[in-house]
Amino acid sequence: MEQLLALFPLTDAQVTSVNGLGIKVVTPAEITEGSVDPAGITIIYGWDQKLGLQVANAVHSQLKWVQTFSAGVDYLPLDQFAKQHVLVTNASGIHAAAIAQSILGYIFYFTRGLWTAEQRRSQRLWQQSADHQLVADEFSVLIFGTGHIAVETARLLKDMDVHVEGVNTTGHAANHFDQTYAFNDPSEGIAKADIIINIMPGTKETDSYFNQQFFDQLENKLLFINVGRGSAVIEADLEAALASGRLNYAALDVTAQEPLPKDSPLWTNDHILLTPHISGIMDHLDQRLFPILQENLQTFVKDGSLVRNQVDLTAGY
Amino acid sequence: MEQLLALFPLTDAQVTSVNGLGIKVVTPAEITEGSVDPAGITIIYGWDQKLGLQVANAVHSQLKWVQTFSAGVDYLPLDQFAKQHVLVTNASGIHAAAIAQSILGYIFYFTRGLWTAEQRRSQRLWQQSADHQLVADEFSVLIFGTGHIAVETARLLKDMDVHVEGVNTTGHAANHFDQTYAFNDPSEGIAKADIIINIMPGTKETDSYFNQQFFDQLENKLLFINVGRGSAVIEADLEAALASGRLNYAALDVTAQEPLPKDSPLWTNDHILLTPHISGIMDHLDQRLFPILQENLQTFVKDGSLVRNQVDLTAGY
Repeated sequence: MEQLLALFPLTDAQVTSVNGLGIKVVTPAEITEGSVDPAGITIIYGWDQKLGLQVANAVHSQLKWVQTFSAGVDYLPLDQFAKQHVLVTNASGIHAAAIAQSILGYIFYFTRGLWTAEQRRSQRLWQQSADHQLVADEFSVLIFGTGHIAVETARLLKDMDVHVEGVNTTGHAANHFDQTYAFNDPSEGIAKADIIINIMPGTKETDSYFNQQFFDQLENKLLFINVGRGSAVIEADLEAALASGRLNYAALDVTAQEPLPKDSPLWTNDHILLTPHISGIMDHLDQRLFPILQENLQTFVKDGSLVRNQVDLTAGY
Repeated sequence: MEQLLALFPLTDAQVTSVNGLGIKVVTPAEITEGSVDPAGITIIYGWDQKLGLQVANAVHSQLKWVQTFSAGVDYLPLDQFAKQHVLVTNASGIHAAAIAQSILGYIFYFTRGLWTAEQRRSQRLWQQSADHQLVADEFSVLIFGTGHIAVETARLLKDMDVHVEGVNTTGHAANHFDQTYAFNDPSEGIAKADIIINIMPGTKETDSYFNQQFFDQLENKLLFINVGRGSAVIEADLEAALASGRLNYAALDVTAQEPLPKDSPLWTNDHILLTPHISGIMDHLDQRLFPILQENLQTFVKDGSLVRNQVDLTAGY
């Protein structure tokens, strides 16, 4: 019998729905208390490093499939899963609206004078001349990544007449993008952009991509946003770019080390807006995610296949 | 000969264009230095309280028309203009994109966790649980006003599946609004809304409208935004609503007294985001405004009529 370890509590209706497919629901407490053998778990819904590895590393582990709550899956033991033939499906698409709206929040914070007003507030300065007072049709945006989140971001930006370009593996066209470049030659797009956004997954190729060499190409850019992975950015090089004026502002939702260490200089850099890896978080996430699990469960119990959001364990996304 | 006092410097090309219609361009310096008689000015482009009144109050003033840079015109001596038969055209429509984008900035600041992150930053707290982490399709917005700015705001919100309702004089339908209510009975809309936005012009009817009686209707509302006029809000009543939990947050771009006095309690209320009346300000405003002036000038020199954005001096907008 399939056994699903639910790392996020299921509602009664959701449990009934899962049971209806002949699958037993196991709670984290049943594993930690020892009343259920971790080796018998076949499906994990969500992820928790300790419990997840307890299941995957159990002798004679029956684990076949992990359904994550996140789009990025770089925190999973992908090599081990590949060897054990464990399938992974992610939550790609679920976070697109939330992250796109967070990105708009970061952009307008800097383009509509909120940043300047906040800087002057402690001195009670009421001054109408902000550093930048831009309307969206005046700036252009380059997005690294053209997946679900990037496409939703581009759609919203195009609605406001922003010029939107993108970077992906081969430079193939993407919906709502005015132009796209291949990852190995984005220099023309970088030169044109006022705002650069990283939404790429965390992979070997994107690791440390935004380094001194990258920032040295910039001249007086307005804003760099990272909602991808903190590992993509060399933070000291980003701060040097801000100090030199190559870049005016940055908004970072992800950092190289999370939680951001208390002694990180990022905390006090007032040209950086910081959020604690929350751009994709939403109240009621489970209501949006459960339909993906359910759809996959239906084919999984029939023939072991997964129809939505299966991750290529080698590519890492 | 018509003489246009340009309170915002015109470019050479703009001067040539105005001169081509047989109109002389006068600079502020020519008035203050006394080289041009203020009584001879027939058109004012922009407004300045001192210079404007010097022209309007001059004995035998020839002033016929004022083209403002703003949408609201409540700072003009409208009664005097009515008596002197001075026409007024405003910049309605020009600021719509800028203000709508500012409004999105205010909304996402509170719905996407930026406010919470900023509050915790001084303590270097990296916590993913923000007070609110909403996606736009989960909240509903009620906008007081359904003019250019409100319609553009509604359009952008509808693109993100927000439920958008509005209030106007008679409750007539408006583009991009799911529902509208008449100004004398908006209670149903108020009850449904999570976010309430004031974009109404400053008039006798809107003065002090958002007072204790209004706020007493609210229960645990997310956000109140004022980009209309500060005179519409009794600030002490707003602060009481925030303190009592009837309202969680406010974003104020306008205040009863501007500049906001140094001793105002608004400065230190951390549930209020403050911007200094800049939501409609944009770099390169003149490039967007000049076409309105030009279009009006063309009919004005022919027959004295104005085709775009004429203000009803009695209504005040």
